[in-house]
Amino acid sequence: MSKGVISNSVINRLPRYYRFLSELKSAGITRISSRELSQKMGITASQIRQDLNCFGGFGQQGYGYNIELLQSEIARILGLDTPKTAILIGMGNMGRAVTMHMNFETKGFRVIGLFDSKESLVGQVVKNLPIRSTSSLDEFCRENRPQIAILCIPKTAAKNIADQLVNLGVKGFWNFSHYDLKIEHENIVVENVHLSDSLMALSYRLTNL
Amino acid sequence: MSKGVISNSVINRLPRYYRFLSELKSAGITRISSRELSQKMGITASQIRQDLNCFGGFGQQGYGYNIELLQSEIARILGLDTPKTAILIGMGNMGRAVTMHMNFETKGFRVIGLFDSKESLVGQVVKNLPIRSTSSLDEFCRENRPQIAILCIPKTAAKNIADQLVNLGVKGFWNFSHYDLKIEHENIVVENVHLSDSLMALSYRLTNL
Repeated sequence: MSKGVISNSVINRLPRYYRFLSELKSAGITRISSRELSQKMGITASQIRQDLNCFGGFGQQGYGYNIELLQSEIARILGLDTPKTAILIGMGNMGRAVTMHMNFETKGFRVIGLFDSKESLVGQVVKNLPIRSTSSLDEFCRENRPQIAILCIPKTAAKNIADQLVNLGVKGFWNFSHYDLKIEHENIVVENVHLSDSLMALSYRLTNL
Repeated sequence: MSKGVISNSVINRLPRYYRFLSELKSAGITRISSRELSQKMGITASQIRQDLNCFGGFGQQGYGYNIELLQSEIARILGLDTPKTAILIGMGNMGRAVTMHMNFETKGFRVIGLFDSKESLVGQVVKNLPIRSTSSLDEFCRENRPQIAILCIPKTAAKNIADQLVNLGVKGFWNFSHYDLKIEHENIVVENVHLSDSLMALSYRLTNL
């Protein structure tokens, strides 16, 4: 359980394990061999054993994995069982899609505030939350101490608002704003979402079919 | 220029090179050493040289990279200079966000049709395109031969519609539908977008700060 040495690639594979195990669980399957899981996920069985060994194993030789147990352990490792508070900034199309589309509660988060700088949007209710003015961000953060901020704002605005939020105690960013957010402070985590990178990779693959 | 051997990780890094080079170009910078580019991107200089060598190099020893040249070469490799036609299916929040938010033209694609199964949405105009009924998908595809489909529909609908579209000649999928689309046909490419994986990875990193 030596957390310090978990590589980024292992961390990035954990959600996929969780997703596949959840599907197997929903299908009523209770046990799976690392070979079967490997076929389903398109990862080698030895990679799976290696990944899970980072967290202490969970399989029994010749017996496979108990799906419910492994799924709940991975949920715990991912922190999905301890909801963290989130605010979302920028209620344009992307902000709205993220608010409506994502099942935050099952992914370890609870959205407690929505913000936009456009006064015409302020007061609108989306998923039971009123859109607030970004001018009230300081006050809201001081009172409610959100742990992460979801940035759905233009690139030009992202850097400044991120600095403001770090000063207000925000510890993590889920960044949709078309640029690689880098925070110069310690103990801040960032996940950049680059939809355009994925689209360009598709263009490459299609061009080279 | 041996395209056959380019690894997925190199392909997935190409859009990032393109993005960084475009930013440098916009900032008026004309030349950069692999060491400087390495610092900016957080990739080792030797990795950059190795990646670009897959496509024949482009740098000159002790002279660095010509940014405009390298950016346009990577655009060509990614196929951004040959627009491919796309249709988008599912005009809920995610479909709408993707339609409005993405700059398809600069990423190698041109959206030529929007579809939804909800009759109440049919006829609405988004980004100058009318939303069509999915019941007209066959006819539209036979007439217009779209090369890719962007799936913003629920998981349960995705598999069936993907099969239908493959039979109609669609060669690629950009899949937002909360599950790993796998196509059993040859010469079909898929990019799955898993926003929830990114959110769970953020949960892990926040939990283990």
